[in-house]
Amino acid sequence: MQTRKGQSIEDESMEIIEREIGPHPYKGHEWKIVRRIIHSTADFDFAGKNGLVFHKDAVNAGLDALKSGKNIIVDVNGIIGLLNKQNLQDFKNQVICDISNPDVVKEATKLNKTRAQTAMRIRASEMNGAVVVIGNAPTALLEVIQMVKENATRPSLIIGVPVGFVCASESKDELQALDIPFITNKGRKGGSPCASAIINALFKIVRGD
Amino acid sequence: MQTRKGQSIEDESMEIIEREIGPHPYKGHEWKIVRRIIHSTADFDFAGKNGLVFHKDAVNAGLDALKSGKNIIVDVNGIIGLLNKQNLQDFKNQVICDISNPDVVKEATKLNKTRAQTAMRIRASEMNGAVVVIGNAPTALLEVIQMVKENATRPSLIIGVPVGFVCASESKDELQALDIPFITNKGRKGGSPCASAIINALFKIVRGD
Repeated sequence: MQTRKGQSIEDESMEIIEREIGPHPYKGHEWKIVRRIIHSTADFDFAGKNGLVFHKDAVNAGLDALKSGKNIIVDVNGIIGLLNKQNLQDFKNQVICDISNPDVVKEATKLNKTRAQTAMRIRASEMNGAVVVIGNAPTALLEVIQMVKENATRPSLIIGVPVGFVCASESKDELQALDIPFITNKGRKGGSPCASAIINALFKIVRGD
Repeated sequence: MQTRKGQSIEDESMEIIEREIGPHPYKGHEWKIVRRIIHSTADFDFAGKNGLVFHKDAVNAGLDALKSGKNIIVDVNGIIGLLNKQNLQDFKNQVICDISNPDVVKEATKLNKTRAQTAMRIRASEMNGAVVVIGNAPTALLEVIQMVKENATRPSLIIGVPVGFVCASESKDELQALDIPFITNKGRKGGSPCASAIINALFKIVRGD
Protein backbone atom coordinates (compact mmCIF):
# COMPACT_ATOMS: atom_id res chain seq x y z
CA MET A 1 0.00 0.00 0.00
CA GLN A 2 0.97 3.62 -0.61
CA THR A 3 0.82 6.14 2.26
CA ARG A 4 -0.86 9.52 1.77
CA LYS A 5 2.58 11.15 1.67
CA GLY A 6 3.82 8.65 -0.91
CA GLN A 7 0.74 9.22 -3.05
CA SER A 8 1.14 13.00 -2.97
CA ILE A 9 4.77 12.69 -4.15
CA GLU A 10 3.62 10.38 -6.95
CA ASP A 11 0.89 12.83 -8.01
CA GLU A 12 3.38 15.70 -8.10
CA SER A 13 5.81 13.58 -10.16
CA MET A 14 3.11 12.77 -12.71
CA GLU A 15 2.28 16.48 -13.03
CA ILE A 16 5.94 17.31 -13.67
CA ILE A 17 6.11 14.60 -16.35
CA GLU A 18 2.96 15.94 -18.07
CA ARG A 19 4.42 19.46 -17.98
CA GLU A 20 7.85 18.52 -19.35
CA ILE A 21 7.14 15.70 -21.81
CA GLY A 22 6.40 17.64 -25.00
CA PRO A 23 4.84 15.99 -28.06
CA HIS A 24 4.67 12.17 -28.02
CA PRO A 25 2.67 9.50 -29.84
CA TYR A 26 0.93 7.86 -26.85
CA LYS A 27 -2.71 8.11 -25.74
CA GLY A 28 -5.12 6.59 -23.22
CA HIS A 29 -3.98 3.41 -21.47
CA GLU A 30 -0.74 3.32 -23.46
CA TRP A 31 0.21 6.77 -22.20
CA LYS A 32 -0.55 5.74 -18.62
CA ILE A 33 1.90 2.85 -19.04
CA VAL A 34 4.63 4.97 -20.64
CA ARG A 35 4.16 7.70 -18.05
CA ARG A 36 4.65 5.20 -15.22
CA ILE A 37 7.89 3.98 -16.83
CA ILE A 38 9.14 7.57 -17.02
CA HIS A 39 8.12 8.00 -13.37
CA SER A 40 10.18 4.92 -12.42
CA THR A 41 13.26 5.80 -14.46
CA ALA A 42 13.23 9.62 -14.76
CA ASP A 43 14.05 8.92 -18.40
CA PHE A 44 11.99 10.63 -21.10
CA ASP A 45 13.73 8.48 -23.75
CA PHE A 46 11.05 5.84 -23.07
CA ALA A 47 8.65 8.15 -24.94
CA GLY A 48 11.25 9.00 -27.58
CA LYS A 49 14.27 7.19 -28.95
CA ASN A 50 13.70 4.20 -26.67
CA GLY A 51 9.92 4.54 -27.02
CA LEU A 52 7.46 1.79 -26.16
CA VAL A 53 5.88 -0.27 -28.94
CA PHE A 54 2.48 -1.85 -28.33
CA HIS A 55 0.87 -4.69 -30.29
CA LYS A 56 -2.73 -3.59 -31.01
CA ASP A 57 -4.20 -6.21 -28.65
CA ALA A 58 -1.51 -5.90 -25.96
CA VAL A 59 -3.21 -3.72 -23.35
CA ASN A 60 -6.51 -5.60 -23.43
CA ALA A 61 -4.76 -8.96 -23.35
CA GLY A 62 -2.68 -7.83 -20.38
CA LEU A 63 -5.67 -6.47 -18.46
CA ASP A 64 -7.67 -9.68 -19.02
CA ALA A 65 -4.79 -11.94 -18.00
CA LEU A 66 -3.86 -10.00 -14.87
CA LYS A 67 -7.39 -9.57 -13.53
CA SER A 68 -8.15 -13.25 -14.08
CA GLY A 69 -5.18 -14.30 -11.95
CA LYS A 70 -2.92 -15.64 -14.68
CA ASN A 71 0.71 -16.45 -13.90
CA ILE A 72 3.37 -13.79 -14.23
CA ILE A 73 6.65 -15.32 -15.37
CA VAL A 74 9.68 -13.05 -14.98
CA ASP A 75 13.35 -13.41 -15.88
CA VAL A 76 14.91 -11.76 -12.80
CA ASN A 77 14.03 -11.32 -9.14
CA GLY A 78 14.61 -7.58 -9.44
CA ILE A 79 11.24 -7.29 -11.17
CA ILE A 80 9.42 -9.07 -8.34
CA GLY A 81 10.84 -6.70 -5.76
CA LEU A 82 9.32 -3.74 -7.60
CA LEU A 83 5.83 -5.17 -8.13
CA ASN A 84 2.94 -3.92 -6.00
CA LYS A 85 2.29 -6.94 -3.75
CA GLN A 86 -1.32 -5.99 -2.97
CA ASN A 87 -2.27 -6.54 -6.62
CA LEU A 88 -0.75 -10.02 -6.70
CA GLN A 89 -2.57 -10.91 -3.52
CA ASP A 90 -5.95 -9.49 -4.58
CA PHE A 91 -5.94 -10.99 -8.08
CA LYS A 92 -4.16 -14.22 -7.04
CA ASN A 93 -1.41 -14.08 -9.66
CA GLN A 94 1.47 -16.46 -9.09
CA VAL A 95 4.85 -14.90 -9.87
CA ILE A 96 7.44 -17.36 -11.15
CA CYS A 97 11.19 -16.76 -11.43
CA ASP A 98 13.61 -19.65 -11.89
CA ILE A 99 16.89 -17.82 -12.40
CA SER A 100 18.28 -19.11 -9.10
CA ASN A 101 16.73 -22.57 -9.33
CA PRO A 102 19.66 -25.01 -8.87
CA ASP A 103 18.33 -27.29 -11.65
CA VAL A 104 18.35 -24.33 -14.02
CA VAL A 105 21.92 -23.43 -13.09
CA LYS A 106 23.02 -27.03 -13.68
CA GLU A 107 21.18 -27.39 -16.98
CA ALA A 108 22.36 -23.99 -18.28
CA THR A 109 25.97 -24.84 -17.48
CA LYS A 110 25.63 -28.22 -19.24
CA LEU A 111 24.03 -26.77 -22.39
CA ASN A 112 26.21 -23.61 -22.48
CA LYS A 113 23.14 -21.40 -22.25
CA THR A 114 22.33 -18.53 -19.89
CA ARG A 115 20.36 -19.20 -16.73
CA ALA A 116 17.59 -16.79 -17.80
CA GLN A 117 17.18 -18.62 -21.08
CA THR A 118 17.01 -22.04 -19.47
CA ALA A 119 14.55 -20.76 -16.86
CA MET A 120 12.07 -19.90 -19.65
CA ARG A 121 12.28 -23.27 -21.38
CA ILE A 122 11.35 -25.29 -18.28
CA ARG A 123 8.17 -23.22 -17.79
CA ALA A 124 6.52 -23.82 -21.18
CA SER A 125 3.45 -25.24 -19.52
CA GLU A 126 2.96 -22.51 -16.86
CA MET A 127 3.56 -19.96 -19.64
CA ASN A 128 0.35 -20.83 -21.49
CA GLY A 129 -2.02 -17.90 -20.99
CA ALA A 130 0.49 -16.21 -18.71
CA VAL A 131 2.04 -12.76 -18.82
CA VAL A 132 5.76 -13.20 -19.55
CA VAL A 133 7.97 -10.33 -18.41
CA ILE A 134 11.58 -10.04 -19.59
CA GLY A 135 13.33 -7.05 -17.99
CA ASN A 136 16.92 -8.12 -18.17
CA ALA A 137 18.12 -10.92 -20.45
CA PRO A 138 17.80 -10.78 -24.25
CA THR A 139 18.57 -14.52 -24.30
CA ALA A 140 15.41 -15.15 -22.25
CA LEU A 141 13.28 -13.13 -24.67
CA LEU A 142 14.78 -14.92 -27.69
CA GLU A 143 14.03 -18.26 -26.02
CA VAL A 144 10.37 -17.31 -25.44
CA ILE A 145 10.06 -16.16 -29.07
CA GLN A 146 11.52 -19.48 -30.20
CA MET A 147 9.11 -21.41 -27.96
CA VAL A 148 6.13 -19.53 -29.43
CA LYS A 149 7.34 -20.25 -32.96
CA GLU A 150 7.60 -23.96 -32.09
CA ASN A 151 4.06 -23.87 -30.63
CA ALA A 152 5.61 -25.05 -27.37
CA THR A 153 3.71 -22.33 -25.48
CA ARG A 154 1.29 -19.43 -25.99
CA PRO A 155 1.41 -16.59 -23.44
CA SER A 156 -1.43 -14.02 -23.26
CA LEU A 157 1.09 -11.19 -23.40
CA ILE A 158 4.86 -10.93 -23.76
CA ILE A 159 6.44 -7.88 -22.15
CA GLY A 160 9.93 -7.77 -23.65
CA VAL A 161 12.07 -4.94 -22.34
CA PRO A 162 15.50 -6.49 -21.79
CA VAL A 163 18.41 -4.11 -21.35
CA GLY A 164 21.91 -4.25 -22.71
CA PHE A 165 24.47 -4.11 -25.43
CA VAL A 166 24.36 -7.65 -26.81
CA CYS A 167 21.16 -8.59 -28.70
CA ALA A 168 18.72 -6.53 -26.55
CA SER A 169 17.66 -4.35 -29.47
CA GLU A 170 17.66 -7.27 -31.91
CA SER A 171 15.51 -9.43 -29.61
CA LYS A 172 12.92 -6.63 -29.50
CA ASP A 173 12.82 -6.50 -33.31
CA GLU A 174 12.20 -10.25 -33.39
CA LEU A 175 9.39 -9.92 -30.86
CA GLN A 176 7.66 -7.35 -33.07
CA ALA A 177 7.69 -9.78 -35.98
CA LEU A 178 5.69 -12.29 -33.92
CA ASP A 179 1.91 -12.52 -34.21
CA ILE A 180 1.17 -12.37 -30.47
CA PRO A 181 0.27 -9.53 -28.07
CA PHE A 182 3.49 -7.84 -26.98
CA ILE A 183 4.74 -4.71 -25.28
CA THR A 184 8.33 -3.80 -26.05
CA ASN A 185 10.51 -0.76 -26.71
CA LYS A 186 13.11 0.43 -29.13
CA GLY A 187 16.85 0.05 -28.59
CA ARG A 188 19.11 -1.01 -25.76
CA LYS A 189 17.37 0.46 -22.73
CA GLY A 190 14.84 -1.42 -20.61
CA GLY A 191 15.34 -3.09 -17.23
CA SER A 192 13.51 -4.20 -14.10
CA PRO A 193 12.03 -0.77 -13.25
CA CYS A 194 10.63 -0.48 -16.79
CA ALA A 195 9.25 -4.05 -16.72
CA SER A 196 7.65 -3.74 -13.29
CA ALA A 197 6.22 -0.31 -14.13
CA ILE A 198 4.31 -1.89 -17.04
CA ILE A 199 2.74 -4.53 -14.76
CA ASN A 200 1.99 -2.00 -12.01
CA ALA A 201 0.41 0.37 -14.57
CA LEU A 202 -1.76 -2.42 -16.03
CA PHE A 203 -3.03 -3.30 -12.53
CA LYS A 204 -3.81 0.38 -11.89
CA ILE A 205 -5.91 0.41 -15.06
CA VAL A 206 -7.67 -2.80 -13.92
CA ARG A 207 -8.52 -1.06 -10.65
CA GLY A 208 -9.73 2.07 -12.45
CA ASP A 209 -7.12 4.28 -10.70
CA MET B 1 26.78 -17.81 -10.16
CA GLN B 2 27.25 -16.78 -13.78
CA THR B 3 27.35 -19.47 -16.49
CA ARG B 4 30.11 -19.46 -19.11
CA LYS B 5 27.59 -18.17 -21.68
CA GLY B 6 26.44 -15.38 -19.34
CA GLN B 7 30.04 -14.39 -18.67
CA SER B 8 30.89 -14.20 -22.36
CA ILE B 9 27.89 -11.90 -23.00
CA GLU B 10 29.00 -9.71 -20.09
CA ASP B 11 32.56 -9.54 -21.43
CA GLU B 12 31.30 -8.53 -24.88
CA SER B 13 29.06 -5.86 -23.33
CA MET B 14 31.97 -4.37 -21.41
CA GLU B 15 34.04 -4.23 -24.61
CA ILE B 16 31.21 -2.39 -26.41
CA ILE B 17 30.99 0.11 -23.54
CA GLU B 18 34.75 0.73 -23.62
CA ARG B 19 34.56 1.25 -27.40
CA GLU B 20 31.60 3.64 -27.36
CA ILE B 21 32.04 5.63 -24.14
CA GLY B 22 34.32 8.47 -25.33
CA PRO B 23 36.10 10.78 -22.87
CA HIS B 24 34.98 10.57 -19.23
CA PRO B 25 36.43 11.55 -15.85
CA TYR B 26 36.55 8.10 -14.18
CA LYS B 27 39.58 5.88 -13.48
CA GLY B 28 40.47 2.67 -11.65
CA HIS B 29 37.87 1.28 -9.25
CA GLU B 30 35.55 4.22 -9.87
CA TRP B 31 35.44 3.47 -13.58
CA LYS B 32 34.71 -0.22 -12.86
CA ILE B 33 31.71 0.89 -10.81
CA VAL B 34 30.43 3.38 -13.41
CA ARG B 35 30.96 0.86 -16.21
CA ARG B 36 28.86 -1.73 -14.38
CA ILE B 37 26.04 0.81 -13.98
CA ILE B 38 26.16 1.51 -17.72
CA HIS B 39 26.11 -2.26 -18.33
CA SER B 40 22.98 -2.57 -16.15
CA THR B 41 21.12 0.39 -17.64
CA ALA B 42 22.49 0.80 -21.19
CA ASP B 43 22.61 4.47 -20.28
CA PHE B 44 25.84 6.40 -20.90
CA ASP B 45 24.36 9.39 -19.03
CA PHE B 46 25.71 7.80 -15.83
CA ALA B 47 29.17 8.85 -17.03
CA GLY B 48 27.89 12.23 -18.26
CA LYS B 49 25.02 14.46 -17.28
CA ASN B 50 23.88 12.01 -14.58
CA GLY B 51 27.45 11.11 -13.72
CA LEU B 52 28.51 9.41 -10.52
CA VAL B 53 30.08 11.44 -7.73
CA PHE B 54 32.43 9.70 -5.27
CA HIS B 55 33.53 10.93 -1.85
CA LYS B 56 37.32 10.47 -1.70
CA ASP B 57 37.07 7.67 0.87
CA ALA B 58 33.95 6.02 -0.58
CA VAL B 59 35.41 3.09 -2.48
CA ASN B 60 37.79 2.00 0.30
CA ALA B 61 35.07 2.40 2.93
CA GLY B 62 32.70 0.30 0.83
CA LEU B 63 35.25 -2.44 0.18
CA ASP B 64 36.15 -2.67 3.89
CA ALA B 65 32.51 -2.76 5.02
CA LEU B 66 31.37 -5.35 2.48
CA LYS B 67 34.29 -7.74 2.96
CA SER B 68 33.93 -7.62 6.73
CA GLY B 69 30.28 -8.68 6.53
CA LYS B 70 28.63 -5.40 7.51
CA ASN B 71 24.87 -4.96 7.08
CA ILE B 72 23.48 -3.69 3.79
CA ILE B 73 20.37 -1.58 4.42
CA VAL B 74 18.29 -0.89 1.30
CA ASP B 75 15.16 1.15 0.66
CA VAL B 76 13.37 -1.19 -1.78
CA ASN B 77 13.22 -4.93 -2.43
CA GLY B 78 13.99 -4.32 -6.11
CA ILE B 79 17.64 -3.80 -5.13
CA ILE B 80 17.84 -7.11 -3.28
CA GLY B 81 16.55 -9.00 -6.31
CA LEU B 82 19.45 -7.67 -8.39
CA LEU B 83 22.27 -8.36 -5.91
CA ASN B 84 24.62 -11.28 -6.51
CA LYS B 85 23.55 -13.72 -3.78
CA GLN B 86 26.85 -15.61 -3.71
CA ASN B 87 28.62 -12.49 -2.40
CA LEU B 88 26.13 -12.03 0.45
CA GLN B 89 26.52 -15.67 1.40
CA ASP B 90 30.33 -15.72 1.21
CA PHE B 91 30.88 -12.47 3.11
CA LYS B 92 27.90 -12.97 5.48
CA ASN B 93 26.28 -9.58 4.86
CA GLN B 94 22.75 -9.26 6.18
CA VAL B 95 20.47 -7.35 3.80
CA ILE B 96 17.73 -5.38 5.53
CA CYS B 97 14.66 -3.86 3.87
CA ASP B 98 11.67 -2.73 5.94
CA ILE B 99 9.50 -1.12 3.28
CA SER B 100 6.83 -3.82 3.65
CA ASN B 101 7.16 -4.21 7.42
CA PRO B 102 3.58 -3.78 8.78
CA ASP B 103 4.87 -1.66 11.70
CA VAL B 104 6.52 0.69 9.22
CA VAL B 105 3.35 1.02 7.16
CA LYS B 106 1.35 1.82 10.33
CA GLU B 107 3.90 4.31 11.66
CA ALA B 108 4.33 6.04 8.27
CA THR B 109 0.58 6.46 7.90
CA LYS B 110 0.29 7.89 11.42
CA LEU B 111 3.16 10.38 10.96
CA ASN B 112 2.27 11.28 7.33
CA LYS B 113 5.68 10.11 6.14
CA THR B 114 6.64 7.72 3.35
CA ARG B 115 7.23 4.06 4.14
CA ALA B 116 10.82 4.25 2.83
CA GLN B 117 11.57 7.17 5.14
CA THR B 118 10.11 5.46 8.21
CA ALA B 119 11.96 2.24 7.37
CA MET B 120 15.30 4.08 7.68
CA ARG B 121 14.52 5.68 11.04
CA ILE B 122 13.78 2.38 12.81
CA ARG B 123 17.15 0.94 11.74
CA ALA B 124 19.44 3.59 13.28
CA SER B 125 21.21 0.95 15.31
CA GLU B 126 21.76 -1.63 12.50
CA MET B 127 22.90 1.27 10.30
CA ASN B 128 26.05 1.94 12.35
CA GLY B 129 28.99 0.79 10.23
CA ALA B 130 26.61 -0.49 7.55
CA VAL B 131 26.38 0.24 3.85
CA VAL B 132 23.13 2.14 3.25
CA VAL B 133 21.75 1.88 -0.28
CA ILE B 134 18.97 4.18 -1.49
CA GLY B 135 17.89 3.35 -5.04
CA ASN B 136 14.38 4.66 -5.08
CA ALA B 137 13.07 7.12 -2.50
CA PRO B 138 14.55 10.61 -2.01
CA THR B 139 12.64 10.78 1.29
CA ALA B 140 14.65 7.79 2.55
CA LEU B 141 17.95 9.44 1.61
CA LEU B 142 16.93 12.73 3.27
CA GLU B 143 16.01 10.79 6.42
CA VAL B 144 19.42 9.07 6.55
CA ILE B 145 21.16 12.45 6.04
CA GLN B 146 19.11 13.88 8.90
CA MET B 147 19.95 10.91 11.14
CA VAL B 148 23.69 11.38 10.47
CA LYS B 149 23.42 15.10 11.26
CA GLU B 150 21.70 14.23 14.56
CA ASN B 151 24.47 11.70 15.35
CA ALA B 152 21.72 9.08 15.55
CA THR B 153 23.74 6.77 13.29
CA ARG B 154 27.02 6.55 11.36
CA PRO B 155 27.08 4.27 8.29
CA SER B 156 30.41 3.24 6.69
CA LEU B 157 29.12 4.30 3.29
CA ILE B 158 25.94 5.87 1.95
CA ILE B 159 25.05 4.97 -1.63
CA GLY B 160 22.41 7.54 -2.56
CA VAL B 161 21.04 7.11 -6.07
CA PRO B 162 17.27 7.65 -5.70
CA VAL B 163 15.33 8.28 -8.88
CA GLY B 164 12.54 10.70 -9.63
CA PHE B 165 11.12 14.14 -10.15
CA VAL B 166 10.47 15.27 -6.57
CA CYS B 167 13.60 15.97 -4.49
CA ALA B 168 15.80 13.23 -5.99
CA SER B 169 18.35 15.68 -7.33
CA GLU B 170 18.11 17.90 -4.24
CA SER B 171 18.64 14.95 -1.86
CA LYS B 172 21.85 14.08 -3.74
CA ASP B 173 23.13 17.65 -3.33
CA GLU B 174 22.48 17.41 0.41
CA LEU B 175 24.35 14.12 0.61
CA GLN B 176 27.41 15.71 -1.00
CA ALA B 177 27.45 18.40 1.68
CA LEU B 178 27.80 15.71 4.37
CA ASP B 179 31.20 14.73 5.77
CA ILE B 180 30.80 10.97 5.33
CA PRO B 181 31.83 8.49 2.61
CA PHE B 182 29.15 8.57 -0.11
CA ILE B 183 28.56 7.48 -3.68
CA THR B 184 25.85 9.41 -5.51
CA ASN B 185 25.11 10.84 -8.94
CA LYS B 186 23.90 14.03 -10.53
CA GLY B 187 20.27 14.72 -11.35
CA ARG B 188 17.03 12.75 -11.43
CA LYS B 189 18.18 9.38 -12.71
CA GLY B 190 19.19 6.49 -10.45
CA GLY B 191 17.18 3.41 -9.48
CA SER B 192 17.51 -0.18 -8.33
CA PRO B 193 19.71 -1.36 -11.23
CA CYS B 194 22.11 1.54 -10.59
CA ALA B 195 22.16 0.90 -6.83
CA SER B 196 22.66 -2.85 -7.10
CA ALA B 197 25.33 -2.42 -9.80
CA ILE B 198 27.38 -0.35 -7.33
CA ILE B 199 27.24 -3.09 -4.69
CA ASN B 200 27.92 -5.86 -7.22
CA ALA B 201 30.88 -3.90 -8.63
CA LEU B 202 32.35 -3.32 -5.15
CA PHE B 203 32.14 -7.06 -4.42
CA LYS B 204 33.87 -7.81 -7.74
CA ILE B 205 36.71 -5.50 -6.70
CA VAL B 206 36.87 -7.26 -3.29
CA ARG B 207 37.25 -10.58 -5.14
CA GLY B 208 39.91 -9.18 -7.46
CA ASP B 209 37.78 -9.87 -10.59
